[in-house]
Amino acid sequence: MSEADFIARLRAIATDPAARGLADDAAVLGDLVLTHDMIVEGVHFLPDERPQDVAWKLVAVNLSDLAAKGAAPLGVLVGYSLTGDEFWDAAFVRGLGEVLRRYDVPLLGGDTVGIPGGAPRTFGLTAIGKAPATGAPARSGVRPGDQIWITGTIGNAGLGLAMRLGQVDPNETCLAAYGRPEPQLAFGQAVAPHVHAMMDVSDGLLIDAQRMAGASGCELGIMLESVPLSAALLAVRPDILDTRLAAASAGDDYQLLFTADPSAAATIRETAAGLNVTVTLLGHAGVGEGITLTHRAQRIALPDRLGFMH
Amino acid sequence: MSEADFIARLRAIATDPAARGLADDAAVLGDLVLTHDMIVEGVHFLPDERPQDVAWKLVAVNLSDLAAKGAAPLGVLVGYSLTGDEFWDAAFVRGLGEVLRRYDVPLLGGDTVGIPGGAPRTFGLTAIGKAPATGAPARSGVRPGDQIWITGTIGNAGLGLAMRLGQVDPNETCLAAYGRPEPQLAFGQAVAPHVHAMMDVSDGLLIDAQRMAGASGCELGIMLESVPLSAALLAVRPDILDTRLAAASAGDDYQLLFTADPSAAATIRETAAGLNVTVTLLGHAGVGEGITLTHRAQRIALPDRLGFMH
Repeated sequence: MSEADFIARLRAIATDPAARGLADDAAVLGDLVLTHDMIVEGVHFLPDERPQDVAWKLVAVNLSDLAAKGAAPLGVLVGYSLTGDEFWDAAFVRGLGEVLRRYDVPLLGGDTVGIPGGAPRTFGLTAIGKAPATGAPARSGVRPGDQIWITGTIGNAGLGLAMRLGQVDPNETCLAAYGRPEPQLAFGQAVAPHVHAMMDVSDGLLIDAQRMAGASGCELGIMLESVPLSAALLAVRPDILDTRLAAASAGDDYQLLFTADPSAAATIRETAAGLNVTVTLLGHAGVGEGITLTHRAQRIALPDRLGFMH
Repeated sequence: MSEADFIARLRAIATDPAARGLADDAAVLGDLVLTHDMIVEGVHFLPDERPQDVAWKLVAVNLSDLAAKGAAPLGVLVGYSLTGDEFWDAAFVRGLGEVLRRYDVPLLGGDTVGIPGGAPRTFGLTAIGKAPATGAPARSGVRPGDQIWITGTIGNAGLGLAMRLGQVDPNETCLAAYGRPEPQLAFGQAVAPHVHAMMDVSDGLLIDAQRMAGASGCELGIMLESVPLSAALLAVRPDILDTRLAAASAGDDYQLLFTADPSAAATIRETAAGLNVTVTLLGHAGVGEGITLTHRAQRIALPDRLGFMH
């Protein structure tokens, strides 16, 4: 059974409004935001990843879900499979401490189990946060006429993965983006009152934008020439359409994708500037469905692969 | 690294009071109770277990942690590893729906991942609940002079496991106790205001009582002749000391172990009777440490194995 088929079955029993139809980054229960993400060796991280970085990623991907709902983290619970490798386990705990201190999030509890030798390392984390007083933005809130925004730059982590796999000469910026993603917690909380819809970009800008379009029943028009690329990425890739499509369909960016009324643009730019976050206008939402891509005013066909499905 | 070593390292970073030193059944954050338990094929459930029963157990063991803190469930998040077996996955979802309806708990969200073929099935669940207005009882609250109580009967699930393994002729009561444990949610909530300490018995009465003694800095004196055994158990086992030690060191009972001032005894009995739950006086807490066992007023040495450590 595919993940999509399984989630469709789960959706039939997840009828409580707090579950948001299992179609959002997190559950929203009163003023609480709850998320649980798992990572699996060989699927979400490389077998030779540093355990400190695996711990960082496990926490960061969950905090990114909270950021996408504008939530302030209250704590995490960790589900850990002992790996049979003492040094690995010890380094994981050090990395866990590091990322929790970095974002000032308490470790509340969790569970530790032994798994048979040779099984892939599988970890889970639950993060709980407090929703903004104005409510947690949904993926499904896009309105026709909205401006589409993205934080930071796109594609660094995907290129970092290629560097880790030896396909590209390495640089620190991209390796760090892949190894230690930074959830946009402060900005997510600050911008939440001004957005109509928000989600984090984890599987690829295009696939996640398509999910937002689907959840909202709107069309998202994305100008590929506006997709923000870092100097580190452009140092190893030419600024051509293929580079932009590759960046926009790579994963692990953990930037925030959001839409807002055009009248909120100045406030959004000021909020970002105040937090030293860059924001870029990516396009506009319209009546319709799915995503449409343009590059310098030319309509571009959707690539076969919009991002990761795992 | 052993689970105990790993948890000791985690404890060094889990300094927030809400974590309760990682020494309780659940975290208590304001009026919220949070728990996350994992179950692994071959460790916590048999490879040939019915998927509906695995789903039931995954939910029940977490709700039992909420019960132990007197909490009313607010919802769960599930972490699911797709098994590559469509019928298994579908039956799991049916079982999940069944247990959630049984306890009226909403599915809020979670995550689904694919794992490489051949890896043991590994699932996680996070349960969140609302603490009682009088506060969530801790494991660590035992006071010398307290009476020690247990709900229901002990040892049925352990015998049910032996039946599943073909070691004992099967009967329905014990098989059901093993396959579909019933968290004592209603009684946990009702009795919480009257107890000094409470926990659920998951790894074995003796090992869990020893953990309660350790957390509380008290000695728990347990009268083995008082350990409540079911008619179903006594139908296949003689009522001798060995039977009682085996039942008290088997796991998966999911009964509530609690201590209270002797003056609360009448209230506790009335509360239990009102909910059709049996409660049994097991012994007394004293100044000292660890557990001491007696059988018909004879001091009994602790068995080598007090329960499961996994």
